[in-house]
Amino acid sequence: MKRGRFITFEGPEGSGKSTQSSRVIERLEGEGHTVTRSREPGGTRTGEMIRDVLQHNASQEAICPETEVLLFAASRAQLVRNVILPALEDGTWVVCDRFMDSTTAYQGYGRGFDVEKMIEINSFAVGEAIPDVTILLDVDVDTSLERMDARFTSTHQELDRFEREARDFHEKVRAGYHALAERWPNRIRLVDSTADENVVAAEIWRHIASLLGETG
Amino acid sequence: MKRGRFITFEGPEGSGKSTQSSRVIERLEGEGHTVTRSREPGGTRTGEMIRDVLQHNASQEAICPETEVLLFAASRAQLVRNVILPALEDGTWVVCDRFMDSTTAYQGYGRGFDVEKMIEINSFAVGEAIPDVTILLDVDVDTSLERMDARFTSTHQELDRFEREARDFHEKVRAGYHALAERWPNRIRLVDSTADENVVAAEIWRHIASLLGETG
Repeated sequence: MKRGRFITFEGPEGSGKSTQSSRVIERLEGEGHTVTRSREPGGTRTGEMIRDVLQHNASQEAICPETEVLLFAASRAQLVRNVILPALEDGTWVVCDRFMDSTTAYQGYGRGFDVEKMIEINSFAVGEAIPDVTILLDVDVDTSLERMDARFTSTHQELDRFEREARDFHEKVRAGYHALAERWPNRIRLVDSTADENVVAAEIWRHIASLLGETG
Repeated sequence: MKRGRFITFEGPEGSGKSTQSSRVIERLEGEGHTVTRSREPGGTRTGEMIRDVLQHNASQEAICPETEVLLFAASRAQLVRNVILPALEDGTWVVCDRFMDSTTAYQGYGRGFDVEKMIEINSFAVGEAIPDVTILLDVDVDTSLERMDARFTSTHQELDRFEREARDFHEKVRAGYHALAERWPNRIRLVDSTADENVVAAEIWRHIASLLGETG
């Protein structure tokens, strides 16, 4: 049986990851592929417990940023071995909203942890589960913040911690993502997500289609 | 105020860490020092939750060894920033049964993960909290296994996972500890723990006393 493909979506809040990854999954399923979508942190029993640790502690004990990095990596390691690799071996495609590049962009470039150390820790966590393609949805910080504002106003959801961080932080994260895209140009495909949703979807599909052996 | 000192005890199961570290604590307190003892994984609210994840999953979902390494490191990172460093800054001495060298010896040398990667991940987790002295209680594998058997027979406690591992594993862990002691001879002091308990305690105290600026 042919091994499934592994696709990750990256980019800041408000870049359309959720919308666009749903469209890709729908289209892949329409073409007869079996697709698994997974979430981080979580996606396994152990990962859900780790997610609880990360959330619970927000109100109980300040969780230090080093611990946060390691807990995300621990959840990811479990997801890789119990979900992602078995699915791929089974011929199933796997789509993740956020994966290893998020840690490097947010904790490394954004928060200032050593970038190479973030990559090292992640490489231990993910092992051979390197994405076949990573769609990096790029959006300028102004647009990203406006979209987050709109989301907040319309739903009154509490903005999560990353969304509350300062604009300076978001600029660093974006620059970090760009640096990663330059470092791994074959894997990471930068897509301008400020365009019309259908235009963005078409461009993303061209990158995915190359995995299908199609010309798009 | 003078910074406290940080002492860790390492060595295989049955090497007397618990007995000997208790004696050191008692003697330090007798000399007027304030001493904190901490345990791993655990020692903080976050760490206790991580401990639950590690134990719970034993019966629910196979926890993969990479996840285990990262969870231990996460718990350690939190312990360092919320307990160890604040205590040391406050002039309190800190004594840990097992710390970063256990991961390198057990997961690196014992289970076969890349030793340098274990050291990298640990170094991220512990930051500046490098022990002032590490007492490595050395015991041959035969004696260690006999002592564990005796403990099992006398209390009917379930042996924990590490204790059930094969003899070959224990030999690798011991050799790994020796390699670490050669790598950091100033920090790690190897003490033969097969001698009489009082003799061992006296030798340990000589190493501790040097931290007090005494000659022993």
